[in-house]
Amino acid sequence: MSLILLPNLLDEGSDIDLYFPKNLKNIILSLEGLIAESEKNARRYLLRFIDWQKLQRLQIKLLNEHSKEDEILELLKLIENKKIGLISDAGLPCIADPGSKLVKLARAKNIKIEAYPGPSSIFLALMQSGLNAQKFAFQGYLPRKEEELIEKIKYLEKESFQNKITQIFIEAPYRSDKMLNLLLKILKGDVLLSLAINLTSKDEKVITKKVYEFKKLKVVIGKNPSVFLLEA
Amino acid sequence: MSLILLPNLLDEGSDIDLYFPKNLKNIILSLEGLIAESEKNARRYLLRFIDWQKLQRLQIKLLNEHSKEDEILELLKLIENKKIGLISDAGLPCIADPGSKLVKLARAKNIKIEAYPGPSSIFLALMQSGLNAQKFAFQGYLPRKEEELIEKIKYLEKESFQNKITQIFIEAPYRSDKMLNLLLKILKGDVLLSLAINLTSKDEKVITKKVYEFKKLKVVIGKNPSVFLLEA
Repeated sequence: MSLILLPNLLDEGSDIDLYFPKNLKNIILSLEGLIAESEKNARRYLLRFIDWQKLQRLQIKLLNEHSKEDEILELLKLIENKKIGLISDAGLPCIADPGSKLVKLARAKNIKIEAYPGPSSIFLALMQSGLNAQKFAFQGYLPRKEEELIEKIKYLEKESFQNKITQIFIEAPYRSDKMLNLLLKILKGDVLLSLAINLTSKDEKVITKKVYEFKKLKVVIGKNPSVFLLEA
Repeated sequence: MSLILLPNLLDEGSDIDLYFPKNLKNIILSLEGLIAESEKNARRYLLRFIDWQKLQRLQIKLLNEHSKEDEILELLKLIENKKIGLISDAGLPCIADPGSKLVKLARAKNIKIEAYPGPSSIFLALMQSGLNAQKFAFQGYLPRKEEELIEKIKYLEKESFQNKITQIFIEAPYRSDKMLNLLLKILKGDVLLSLAINLTSKDEKVITKKVYEFKKLKVVIGKNPSVFLLEA
């Protein structure tokens, strides 16, 4: 019947009244099921809005990077008959997450789709960075192999300069410091680098500096979720 | 003292409880001033949350595409002393709007910056399109001159195919139908094109089809705000 794209938090501990639309609770009360990346995550999400008893009556289904084509087709059958929500583990569904595969199939079947806003690490980082946001590209994860990664960073720097575009990318938390150090080593000194750490949490930190200034700060990210942005 | 980046609606008539965080009202009550693209827009925004009397006590300042460097520096002085909000005419500040110039200067002065989520036409279009959102680029407005525009569209199509990236762009409403017709003429038949019209309004419409299928629909956008997306 319909697929409802719902926001999730970026940080477990943050205040839903600061980051979710006021009427999200009513939308969730009207759902007949929820598709999430994990069952634990789905329950935690729902319990912010509804009680345990109501939760038992809601179908929970999974969609994540392990989902196979036929499992996605099963989900499609579900939303053909019911009003189902879709959430991501963090932030907005579909953005840098496998949800878009389901939306694509649902669109082709003319299933009604609705979307509501909420925190996006990409946009919260971009807005707060001060970097040019007239044009920007979200590159997802960069290559893992160091040689390819170095090539990619150089390419992104060049493209940013030529097309006046801000480059945005992410990295697995345990590799964030390695990424930062590589960026500081490779990028030209006057490139603007912005780092957004722990967005929406009480430890939120956004640093925007030219590379040569950034080097002096000796920033350590640790395993905190972060977004990288650069403008050459 | 601080700069607070606040969401605006995409459509005047849409329900703030569906698109704004619940606590936005409290944040706005705590402001000492608001920076907006026009005074009329600022007043209309504030009156959604506060009464006329309270409004009189709030400073309203302008930041738009006509703002000169020294005017932006004046705004910076204001936020060094007070808690000031920043809004865009529609959607999120800084994203495809001159707000990022102010944020950049504020960052350099270590002024505290906070950001809250709300509707973004770019993300609402991308989420609902079903197009790949693992990587995407927002290109802003494309060139005006037809010859350059055709070159650009061909370049974006090629880059989308090569880098598996979804291209997102906007157009002035009165040129939207011209843009759509040009896209249908130039793009290869199997490119996925998505068009999001009147997002968040009661007339919201999202169409995602391969170019050859799109041609049969004879879509007319008129002067309705729209976002274009393509995946080759």
